[in-house]
Amino acid sequence: MNGERRDLLRTRAALSRMFEPSDNIGLALVEAAGPGDALRVATGAIRAGEVLTREVLEVLAAAGIPATGNSLSSALERWIPRVPDLAPDRDLSMIGRAGGELLIPEDSRWPEALRDLGLGMPLCLWTRGDLSKGIPALRQTAAVVGSRDSTGYGASVTGDISAGLVTREWTVVSGGAYGIDAQAHRAALVTGSQARIPTIAVMACGVDRYYPAGNEELLREVVRRGLLLSEVPPGSAPTRWRFLQRNRIIAALSAVTVVVEARWRSGALNTAHHAAALGREVGAVPGSVYSANSAGCHRLLRDGSAVCVTDAAEIVELGSPIGSTGDSAESTHEEVKAAHDGLTIEDMLLLDALPLRSGSLVEKLASVAGLSVSAVRAGLARLELEGLAARDGPDKWRRSRG
Amino acid sequence: MNGERRDLLRTRAALSRMFEPSDNIGLALVEAAGPGDALRVATGAIRAGEVLTREVLEVLAAAGIPATGNSLSSALERWIPRVPDLAPDRDLSMIGRAGGELLIPEDSRWPEALRDLGLGMPLCLWTRGDLSKGIPALRQTAAVVGSRDSTGYGASVTGDISAGLVTREWTVVSGGAYGIDAQAHRAALVTGSQARIPTIAVMACGVDRYYPAGNEELLREVVRRGLLLSEVPPGSAPTRWRFLQRNRIIAALSAVTVVVEARWRSGALNTAHHAAALGREVGAVPGSVYSANSAGCHRLLRDGSAVCVTDAAEIVELGSPIGSTGDSAESTHEEVKAAHDGLTIEDMLLLDALPLRSGSLVEKLASVAGLSVSAVRAGLARLELEGLAARDGPDKWRRSRG
Repeated sequence: MNGERRDLLRTRAALSRMFEPSDNIGLALVEAAGPGDALRVATGAIRAGEVLTREVLEVLAAAGIPATGNSLSSALERWIPRVPDLAPDRDLSMIGRAGGELLIPEDSRWPEALRDLGLGMPLCLWTRGDLSKGIPALRQTAAVVGSRDSTGYGASVTGDISAGLVTREWTVVSGGAYGIDAQAHRAALVTGSQARIPTIAVMACGVDRYYPAGNEELLREVVRRGLLLSEVPPGSAPTRWRFLQRNRIIAALSAVTVVVEARWRSGALNTAHHAAALGREVGAVPGSVYSANSAGCHRLLRDGSAVCVTDAAEIVELGSPIGSTGDSAESTHEEVKAAHDGLTIEDMLLLDALPLRSGSLVEKLASVAGLSVSAVRAGLARLELEGLAARDGPDKWRRSRG
Repeated sequence: MNGERRDLLRTRAALSRMFEPSDNIGLALVEAAGPGDALRVATGAIRAGEVLTREVLEVLAAAGIPATGNSLSSALERWIPRVPDLAPDRDLSMIGRAGGELLIPEDSRWPEALRDLGLGMPLCLWTRGDLSKGIPALRQTAAVVGSRDSTGYGASVTGDISAGLVTREWTVVSGGAYGIDAQAHRAALVTGSQARIPTIAVMACGVDRYYPAGNEELLREVVRRGLLLSEVPPGSAPTRWRFLQRNRIIAALSAVTVVVEARWRSGALNTAHHAAALGREVGAVPGSVYSANSAGCHRLLRDGSAVCVTDAAEIVELGSPIGSTGDSAESTHEEVKAAHDGLTIEDMLLLDALPLRSGSLVEKLASVAGLSVSAVRAGLARLELEGLAARDGPDKWRRSRG
């Protein structure tokens, strides 16, 4: 590793401990001054001059974030208490010992999809797991998220969807939580894939922690065969703010975000809103109107924020450019055609007029069907060919018993 | 009854036996020549001259219906076989004996909503039942339709929706069939309403017939307390064509058409498509992704043809001009607010940083939360007021145990 890269890693490691996720002033400072000077300003090693302060405000204004002249100085006040905690070398060796790595935007392996977050792009990603195949490209990645207190129905649909996605060589992204998240990771791992990692868990705490504790075995398996990611450094606790911000990373990494089960108010809806704000596709799985765990999904469907999806094929279709998938959702719903399918209106009228048992005369059929005598004769010839009409004496016809 | 009205009734009664529903040539002839001359042309009593033939073609062209110069003459061929069946006086006395009436577009009681069908407006409506309150206005009428082979889930949702609509003084329109239709009528009748009739059944056969036979008791009750309607005259059999055309009347009479359960291919979808073509609102009830009886509903939701509806309040909201209903769907989903709802981001960060047991110093809280010391002090004061933070020794704070 060359010295410049090592410096960048140390700098971004330190910044990720200094700034909470989506600290817009901090991120604008990094954009205006570059990571090195941003860290020096944030720690108080150098002062932000008038020019830099104006540039920070310009970056914020360009991102549509309201700020005032003293935004930077009040931000400095909240950063200073964390200066004693900075220990980038310790953090980097800790992630190394855990078999992980720190990915930074200057890295060629950085997921391009995260750039769609604009100023909100994470400063870095602390990772553990299998980076040999890289982080899968956006177009074959779906987030499968939902309630912690999922129902049996939710678990079952999640399992089917997640397995179906991995079978189609998609990667399943989720949040490592109980319920839908856990089931999504589990089904992806069980299904497996040669081409790419089956699943990614984006954590709200440091990747050295297995949180929640009940998912420790599952998350260990994600590290073994998939990827664990977080923008907060090792040792960080999962806080409400970090959960909410973590959701934007799940959404940004995924071509489609699917909410399988969510209550009327649910964190999973937050992920869906992040996805919609990024212009990503959002799917919601329908369920019983009596299930409180589907009320959030129905809310998304009702307000038009999400498309109704019922299986993996529909999710792939939703996330794929039009016409690019041969795996049409229609095909899974093919039903047996009825005998009368494809008949013209006249032939349908005639078929309905034909008696089941003893035959009717052509004149009678014309009156019952509301067709001319010649139209009845022509129609009977067609229906006879189709095996739907049969002669029953001279000039008499009935339905075919075939 | 004056003679002119009696003539109109006889004429339209005869035309409704002569023409199948939505016989566009016949309907264009009525529009061009008026009902009386149209009947005389259709029966061969007078010949259609060049002027009338051209006018019929103009009416068809204006309605966007393809026709050729000999459309009228070939239509005459299919009308002639029915001339011997015409018996308008018999039909009118039959409907009278059944306690019913023939409604015609010239009547002040004619449902204005049907005019939205344009050329496809029925020639007349054969009715049985309670016409004393009139046919309810469009804005308080919903169609509730679905599969004949409904599930227990579908029956249950239909019952709740239908009862909820009638409670809100809406009228439930359906098709009188087994399954969802029957359940919709039944729940509406049980709920009852003072202001208007609870339910309307639009039949594909004559209103003198109770079809299907298993619904006879139910349809008798609809006649007693609601309305039975059909555009085809007494004695007419229900044919596939009449079922499909009947659906347009259900859709046209209703501000909202709700599909509760439908297979991937289902007649209920035909009603939904009629409603959409008329610019009426369409709702679909979600269900299990494993239920074939919900696949048609999910199809409507997925392709954007329908809005997701889960209860009567949402249907009323869908069918009401924006802002006209105080019965907001939101209100039914109010959940208990969590303690942290409505907190600012800073207070949320601070709350998450507060230890549950032994208190932390303000400086420590600043570092953990990523806030300035002064922001922590201000935040602690707010959280203490909210009962969320408590002092735990000099300058030390923890979460409130309250």
